[in-house]
Amino acid sequence: MSKMTPRTLSGFMELLPGPQQQMERIMEVLRTTYSLYGFTPLDTPAIEAAEVLLAKGGGETEKQIYRFQKGDSDLALRFDLTVPLAKYVALHYADLSFPFRRYQIGKVYRGERAQRGRFREFYQADIDIIGDGKLSIINEAEIPAIIYKTFSTLGLKRFQIRVNNRKILNGFYEMLSLTERSGDIMRTVDKLDKIGAEKVGALLQEDCGLTAEQSGEILKFIAITGSNEEVLSALEGYAGRSEVFDQGLDELKTVVQYLGAFGVPAENFAVDLTIARGLDYYTGTVYETTLLDHPEIGSVCSGGRYDNLAEYYTDRQLPGAGISIGLTRLFYVLGEQKMLNPDLPTAPADVLILPMTEDLAPAIALATELRENGVRAQLHCEQKKFKQKISYADKLGIPYVIFLGEDEIAGGVVACKDMQSGEQTKLSPADTLARIQAGLAEKNRGPIILG
Amino acid sequence: MSKMTPRTLSGFMELLPGPQQQMERIMEVLRTTYSLYGFTPLDTPAIEAAEVLLAKGGGETEKQIYRFQKGDSDLALRFDLTVPLAKYVALHYADLSFPFRRYQIGKVYRGERAQRGRFREFYQADIDIIGDGKLSIINEAEIPAIIYKTFSTLGLKRFQIRVNNRKILNGFYEMLSLTERSGDIMRTVDKLDKIGAEKVGALLQEDCGLTAEQSGEILKFIAITGSNEEVLSALEGYAGRSEVFDQGLDELKTVVQYLGAFGVPAENFAVDLTIARGLDYYTGTVYETTLLDHPEIGSVCSGGRYDNLAEYYTDRQLPGAGISIGLTRLFYVLGEQKMLNPDLPTAPADVLILPMTEDLAPAIALATELRENGVRAQLHCEQKKFKQKISYADKLGIPYVIFLGEDEIAGGVVACKDMQSGEQTKLSPADTLARIQAGLAEKNRGPIILG
Repeated sequence: MSKMTPRTLSGFMELLPGPQQQMERIMEVLRTTYSLYGFTPLDTPAIEAAEVLLAKGGGETEKQIYRFQKGDSDLALRFDLTVPLAKYVALHYADLSFPFRRYQIGKVYRGERAQRGRFREFYQADIDIIGDGKLSIINEAEIPAIIYKTFSTLGLKRFQIRVNNRKILNGFYEMLSLTERSGDIMRTVDKLDKIGAEKVGALLQEDCGLTAEQSGEILKFIAITGSNEEVLSALEGYAGRSEVFDQGLDELKTVVQYLGAFGVPAENFAVDLTIARGLDYYTGTVYETTLLDHPEIGSVCSGGRYDNLAEYYTDRQLPGAGISIGLTRLFYVLGEQKMLNPDLPTAPADVLILPMTEDLAPAIALATELRENGVRAQLHCEQKKFKQKISYADKLGIPYVIFLGEDEIAGGVVACKDMQSGEQTKLSPADTLARIQAGLAEKNRGPIILG
Repeated sequence: MSKMTPRTLSGFMELLPGPQQQMERIMEVLRTTYSLYGFTPLDTPAIEAAEVLLAKGGGETEKQIYRFQKGDSDLALRFDLTVPLAKYVALHYADLSFPFRRYQIGKVYRGERAQRGRFREFYQADIDIIGDGKLSIINEAEIPAIIYKTFSTLGLKRFQIRVNNRKILNGFYEMLSLTERSGDIMRTVDKLDKIGAEKVGALLQEDCGLTAEQSGEILKFIAITGSNEEVLSALEGYAGRSEVFDQGLDELKTVVQYLGAFGVPAENFAVDLTIARGLDYYTGTVYETTLLDHPEIGSVCSGGRYDNLAEYYTDRQLPGAGISIGLTRLFYVLGEQKMLNPDLPTAPADVLILPMTEDLAPAIALATELRENGVRAQLHCEQKKFKQKISYADKLGIPYVIFLGEDEIAGGVVACKDMQSGEQTKLSPADTLARIQAGLAEKNRGPIILG
């Protein structure tokens, strides 16, 4: 028979079992953490009617979307989790209670040009809080806490949540009578990290047509840095000149004020006036999260406050606040940077049991008992040499191997080898279980992400 | 602005938050249970090259598949998890250790005619054990244990794992010189439950061209029922006439022999000679699982032993054994049958905190403390009336509501209401936490599935 050469499409992540275990651990932390803050899991279809997904229309989205016919239906794969959420909330409005807090971890699809570290199928891990008509600023103040809890639970230490408020930016541009040009200006300011302040100033004058004075004001404004108190105090200097600005400053002060009560350490948070995010979507607090030792990666968790989630589907005003982690890309980058803790077990089992007798019943009964106590046990009953079986455990990183021969069965004991230390014990099944459980707790104790 | 009417495609399950929580619970049990038996999680792409997915080609599959072009690529959505597994094992053979045990819970796509309870996007939850060249019968003996553990952990009691062996069937047809016609015969026998033995006998003669004697032999054979011992003993009567039959009988005896050690109670298991499963795929033990009170649902977990997983991709002989749960359909049916325990909490949070003071810091600090102790806490700081906030908790089924006013803060206590009993306590934060944790343990104790 002629064979089809097996292959996986480029731009599609397909992990080997070890890395997949690391990915599963991260997902489990996300699910648990999001749940702690009262977010309920949702799972919407990956396929939607194309006209529903593209209700907003236009732009990059339409070019990248996977769209196809099936029968008479014009279908498309979701390209993010926000549009399906908007559809969900508009469609099920009557069955939901607001504020509505949901998380969703799911695959989305974008037919981007394939390149290293870019994926066409990738997980997003989103949370959103949707209000009906109104939504308290406290929700925006809580989001840094969720970001902090998520990344610190993953083990990460050196990261910073950077926060700004779009009303402050909009109010500031209003003061300079530059509201109409604020989009161009923000796109230019966004290049600050890459090209420096001087070149930004030049571009503001050349490309955006600003006066030297206006450009100077902007550079002075985005140069405001320091502790949260210092930045807020500098911003107070602009107060009273724009209602929008003053409202934004109030909001930002509320966000900063409650950080401590929300458990966010000062060193993991910074007010950063250069952050703008999506130009026409976000309207209040905006968030970015950067790894301090890897600024080149960019933001690993971003989002903000928006005023109108579902405007393409309903007349209802549904403001919200949310963040998104590009999980597949984050996982890829963490792997590249050697930041995934290699010491955590990634084996499919905690114990490999090698029966050494014709009658397998005692070995099977032992496996059953271990499983009933939460230990992941695999029986190895294949016709292989003893050495091959040990090497199997070794290759997979299975931490314990149990041998069960006539002598052990007769003596009511179990021979158990710790594959890492090489130490071998002969103990009762109960004592062996206790030893394995203690050992596993130790081996599983480390952080998932290093750094 | 004109609005797009939001809709979800027919044949695509989209659950409200409460049912989604029930679904998540089931998925969590599957992940945990499969892991206990040494299966490692995999997550392959939902999109593959069409020629890879269709390497086997032909039949219903090709008609139902979602296939589309993107750029120059001929793509398709996976229609099961077995073909992607075959591709995965063939592609990554050098990086895997055998026996290779993996589980995968993922969405698959089939463009079936939409009808009630039929889904075009649905979850399958599969486990497979793949050997390299050979695979011990003990793996086939272990599978009923995994099925039993899965469903009993979900809370189900009245189910039966029905097992047969294809070699017994093939050997039996060989004895009757009916090997060539065995496909037609098995398809006819498969109607036994629906049309009864007499009509099956008539069809065997009319449609399959069997003699009255041959038809009688078959009816006599499939009428063998009783305890496992009785069935095995009746089968012994056929021994010695076909090598394949004898081998199948040996395998079946091994499967039955170790049930006890694997922890499978006799009442949840039956040898059933009428079970055949996939006609050209399975080669050894085959499994079906039926709900005793709902036989009309058909099998909720099926599978078997096969000899050649990846024959379309590789010359290597990769035998395996596996089972699959059609999770979306199962969930739908359980809902229809009112078998999902309505008493388990499905709220997004365990506690709703209502701050009654201007300064929110004490309420936020309390929420932070609860979360650090694993309690899912939501702050409700919206500008709503007290009554509306209570009704919010009530509608969502949030089991506890905490009020935190000046008096409580000054007194170092927390007012906490159990929404079910109506009982309200004023205790220290630590005692409130303990009360909530004890209450949650109680509320979460019941089975997920009833029956």
